[in-house]
Amino acid sequence: MDAAALLQRFLAGDMRALARAITLVESGYPEGQELLKRLRGRGNSRVVGLTGSPGAGKSTLSDRLIEEIRKRGETVAVLAVDPSSPFTGGAILGDRIRMMRHHQDKGVYIRSLASRGALGGLAGATVASLAFLEAFGFDRILVETVGVGQSEVDIARVADTTVLILTPAAGDSVQAFKAGVMEIADIFVVNKFDLPGGERIVQEIKTTLELAAMRPGGWKPPVLTAIAPKAEGIPGLLEALDTHYRHLEEHGLLEADRLERARFEVESVIQEWGRRRTKEGYALIERVSKGELTPEEAALKLLNQPAKLHSC
Amino acid sequence: MDAAALLQRFLAGDMRALARAITLVESGYPEGQELLKRLRGRGNSRVVGLTGSPGAGKSTLSDRLIEEIRKRGETVAVLAVDPSSPFTGGAILGDRIRMMRHHQDKGVYIRSLASRGALGGLAGATVASLAFLEAFGFDRILVETVGVGQSEVDIARVADTTVLILTPAAGDSVQAFKAGVMEIADIFVVNKFDLPGGERIVQEIKTTLELAAMRPGGWKPPVLTAIAPKAEGIPGLLEALDTHYRHLEEHGLLEADRLERARFEVESVIQEWGRRRTKEGYALIERVSKGELTPEEAALKLLNQPAKLHSC
Repeated sequence: MDAAALLQRFLAGDMRALARAITLVESGYPEGQELLKRLRGRGNSRVVGLTGSPGAGKSTLSDRLIEEIRKRGETVAVLAVDPSSPFTGGAILGDRIRMMRHHQDKGVYIRSLASRGALGGLAGATVASLAFLEAFGFDRILVETVGVGQSEVDIARVADTTVLILTPAAGDSVQAFKAGVMEIADIFVVNKFDLPGGERIVQEIKTTLELAAMRPGGWKPPVLTAIAPKAEGIPGLLEALDTHYRHLEEHGLLEADRLERARFEVESVIQEWGRRRTKEGYALIERVSKGELTPEEAALKLLNQPAKLHSC
Repeated sequence: MDAAALLQRFLAGDMRALARAITLVESGYPEGQELLKRLRGRGNSRVVGLTGSPGAGKSTLSDRLIEEIRKRGETVAVLAVDPSSPFTGGAILGDRIRMMRHHQDKGVYIRSLASRGALGGLAGATVASLAFLEAFGFDRILVETVGVGQSEVDIARVADTTVLILTPAAGDSVQAFKAGVMEIADIFVVNKFDLPGGERIVQEIKTTLELAAMRPGGWKPPVLTAIAPKAEGIPGLLEALDTHYRHLEEHGLLEADRLERARFEVESVIQEWGRRRTKEGYALIERVSKGELTPEEAALKLLNQPAKLHSC
């Protein structure tokens, strides 16, 4: 399929063209970015980030959310970002099962993306994929990330609304999340609320939130409960998402969200260049190691190679 | 104090000159990097990264480790990297207490550094501070980080040996760490081993390690236990650190470590430039948001401003 045909089929709503477009950016083909340039700015999706530790039930919860969204007649895409770790095969399997469940439904698109590294946050390809999904015209986009570190902070930068999913299970105390993550969630969900300790963790989160800094526009993050396999708490979550979105609209915060996403994307590109350049620039790195160059001098030399910059 | 006097006093072993040098790089003064350029490559410290979730007892453990190292007559510096979060005042207070304890001992230097952001990993200033400590001539340097995400991966890139500290307490299951962190630790310590569940977590770690990828040179990470307040397990930990260091020496891996650290430093500089440029380049970011520029085009424009590059 050539570029013009791909664009045409994408605009005609062909899901295979969408899948192809995402594969192009994921694999780093410049054709992907070229296509994106022609599609960017279309669409007006509500982007929701879903994050939480492994085992918090993100997949099941988003699966139920898909059902609830479809009941309303809205379309939805899911972008599941998997850290590329040998330990996380389970998540990818779960996605396959979900994909099969919704395979016949033209209002649902589910896609897994590998993240950059084990804990390396969201790859630039994630944001590019998001832009494709938006241009394709989905009403809502759910971005799932495994919440262990940087990807949670990243997700808050690209999503309109960030949902942090916790459970009463061991390994999910608020303590484990306290340095930073609590501060970026717009909505908290205590999933698996039927397990012992559910009420305790709800109270823990509320106490922590009382100490937290004021959110933009005075938003007070609600603490919801859910039992995803029974679909309990899902309509309430969808309502909370809409309430938060209205809050963004009413306080003029959506535009800031979109700019922050673009900024994240540009930063990701520069960071990726830095990563590649320092790999290629072995001789310069060795000189830094020996104290012959400062890191700043080496960075300047690495970046001031326009020919190579273009090839990245 | 002018630059020449500072350098002279630093080389004479004046700890106030060391403190001043670190403050210069921490505050981003170019004088700090200039000084570093003249000192880089001196010294030959063994650098150990200590990481683990909040509450794992890193401060107490490293405090006992300091005692054990001093018993051997070796000198030691501690760099405690604090995420700049309103919730983590406790760690800084703990450092103050430690500093007072060792205040009279000229063989110990303890310093807290704010990390870049809530979960943003190690700042470039951390690696620069490390280079100062090394040039100052400490036998060992301990770098403590709160193990919630990127900083753990970063620490593995700058340390010769990375120690992951876990506890049997709720919130510290191996599950919570599984995506990536397990893979970067050279030594595991189950601290607070007198709490219930100690043996269980030791077994969990061992099982996980059996599934993990082979380490460089065939290193098999030991799983140690400790009760830091009683100093139990500390001599064994120091022994394990030495065994790992010998492993690095025997397999010619130290040089690779040093290069990786330099690479990390150059990458950090480029990343920091990206962060600043995208903040300054509002007009370009807006054009990306509107689809008028690709992120790559904006990144190129932002970086191709040599005058500004130098001022960073």
